[in-house]
Amino acid sequence: MTYYEARRARVCDWMVREGIAMAMFEDTEGRRDPALRWLCGHPGDALLFLQADKRTLLVAWDISIARFHGEVDHISPYSDFGRRPIEALRNAAEFLKAPYGSRLEIPPVTPYPLFLQYLEESGDYDILCRRNGLHDAVRDYRAVKDEEEIRIYHEAGAITNGLIDQLEAGVREGVIKTELDAALFLEAESRRQGCEGLGFETLAAGPSRSFAIHAFPAYTSRDFGGPGMSILDFGVQYQGYITDVTMSFVRGPLSRAQEKQISLVEKAARTALPLMVSGAVARNIALAVDDLFGKARKVMPHGLGHGVGLETHEAPALSSRAENTDVLKAGMIVTLEPGLYHPVLGGCRLENDVLITDAGPQLLTNSRIVRL
Amino acid sequence: MTYYEARRARVCDWMVREGIAMAMFEDTEGRRDPALRWLCGHPGDALLFLQADKRTLLVAWDISIARFHGEVDHISPYSDFGRRPIEALRNAAEFLKAPYGSRLEIPPVTPYPLFLQYLEESGDYDILCRRNGLHDAVRDYRAVKDEEEIRIYHEAGAITNGLIDQLEAGVREGVIKTELDAALFLEAESRRQGCEGLGFETLAAGPSRSFAIHAFPAYTSRDFGGPGMSILDFGVQYQGYITDVTMSFVRGPLSRAQEKQISLVEKAARTALPLMVSGAVARNIALAVDDLFGKARKVMPHGLGHGVGLETHEAPALSSRAENTDVLKAGMIVTLEPGLYHPVLGGCRLENDVLITDAGPQLLTNSRIVRL
Repeated sequence: MTYYEARRARVCDWMVREGIAMAMFEDTEGRRDPALRWLCGHPGDALLFLQADKRTLLVAWDISIARFHGEVDHISPYSDFGRRPIEALRNAAEFLKAPYGSRLEIPPVTPYPLFLQYLEESGDYDILCRRNGLHDAVRDYRAVKDEEEIRIYHEAGAITNGLIDQLEAGVREGVIKTELDAALFLEAESRRQGCEGLGFETLAAGPSRSFAIHAFPAYTSRDFGGPGMSILDFGVQYQGYITDVTMSFVRGPLSRAQEKQISLVEKAARTALPLMVSGAVARNIALAVDDLFGKARKVMPHGLGHGVGLETHEAPALSSRAENTDVLKAGMIVTLEPGLYHPVLGGCRLENDVLITDAGPQLLTNSRIVRL
Repeated sequence: MTYYEARRARVCDWMVREGIAMAMFEDTEGRRDPALRWLCGHPGDALLFLQADKRTLLVAWDISIARFHGEVDHISPYSDFGRRPIEALRNAAEFLKAPYGSRLEIPPVTPYPLFLQYLEESGDYDILCRRNGLHDAVRDYRAVKDEEEIRIYHEAGAITNGLIDQLEAGVREGVIKTELDAALFLEAESRRQGCEGLGFETLAAGPSRSFAIHAFPAYTSRDFGGPGMSILDFGVQYQGYITDVTMSFVRGPLSRAQEKQISLVEKAARTALPLMVSGAVARNIALAVDDLFGKARKVMPHGLGHGVGLETHEAPALSSRAENTDVLKAGMIVTLEPGLYHPVLGGCRLENDVLITDAGPQLLTNSRIVRL
């Protein structure tokens, strides 16, 4: 059984248990869902239909790519259905022989007006679009990485760590002088080392722009690594899987307030890491850091971390928001990214990827705050 | 009156006419909507609330960026509302004094399960989530560029044309030899020339990969510009606005079938361009090209073009799909991108950006099929 088949088998078990005849996964512009890739290997721009009896139909925008990547029973071009998801759903239900009147589940991100159209045009079927349904179950399955995914992540982590070392050397030696230098180094070097590319647009913010959580534009030709605090947030995409790290580069003269900010961020990382164990309530870890910052009268304007995988932001959430009920489990890979920002002093963030194991947290990456 | 104010004034007129007290625009992960930037200049990760009386509240993830870019009356941090859109909506309705019981319009991409929650938690208001409502009206407004946008597009086109010339020279001179060379040249050079970056991930597909509409991965270290057909699809983002062009590079020896494919694509572009006039039914233009290709027993697996703007894909659609009722108007900027692909011969696409004017179509870009 391949990893894709094993994943689908779990999903189909869920469907049988919950009485779902067929499920649709959609990965199209505006409604991206890498669950499709997770279930069959096809990288995107497609619909995947999965019958409870495990048969699969991939409706792809580009069937040449689908034939190369999609591990499925059948492939159809999306143009056969005028690129209309409802048309494709009706056809798939017939092709995969979903019994009339049975329950078909569509993605919970389906817009309300589109859902009304599904109801209108899929008369014979019971269309489900809901929270805590199949797609959320798949999201939870994806949060715990399987053996193959963990193998990939160890390789992705090693590549990321090599880049981190090269970046530190490049900035120290003065080869990387601007935000653009740092970002382009990553674009080129990640691909040279066999990655599909970067996991997301690199955020490189020199001292003049590090006050923002996410610099806009993402990088410019301004100074990087000069006096003050610079932030570099990046990740590779390797065999589909994304790493997500943030280095900070700090160069004196630094004010006492800046030194304090930096050491608080480092302390937050040191405080949180040992708490990232299987069974831990994710929110409590975030609250511990909120508390640490709060005592210094600082507020972190973003969450403490998030799962990574085929997407940059996945379950679980390492956030202190009241509704966060996520619990860490062995096999999860979660960022830990304390950061503090000040409109005048600038910002500083330290982010690493942590694999939760039964033996405790394991750092997959070794990003750091580099003192120049 | 600034351009933002003028745009909002039109939207508010629409709201008054249709009895909408307040509208919400959302630009967050998973639900991107550059209408927010179009209405106030803030580049994203925010909610914009617009009262029919023209007052505005921007709820932003990063208030430092919002203060710098957002031309609005009020700014609040999203964290004040636990980053929950419903919470922010309720608060905005109160702050902007939307009368109890009045109609508030939320984006039509709101997922069905989330919409149910809006209904539950916004008891005193009538929440609208619909097609052909305010947001679709804004989409239509955005499709026709105003004076300022056309000015920006002339500059963006000139930068794009400079890059096209440099790319042709680079490939001819052998400086650009791989897909990676072409893509990284664009990453660096676009920013050096004052762009925010690229409009989308460059698709660089050498002869071995040009068979796909959109190569996967987007670019690799493989040969680019060698014998056969290579495709380079790219665009800059300049002051927010995206150009979108595709060059093809072809090098002999080419088979007769490949020559035929190339000349058909060029013929399609020549045939369609003069049809792109104000008042033209967009679908008919696409049908004319389908017809041309059909006579040669070829099928184009994608649309003939699409509007560009703050997004890569905007209204109108230059597509032959039956439901496409778009009509071209002066001020629209639309790609024209015939392409043909073959699993063995490879692919070839020619894409340019066309401004529709009362005096006929005006090419903003001069992309071409380069014969090496």
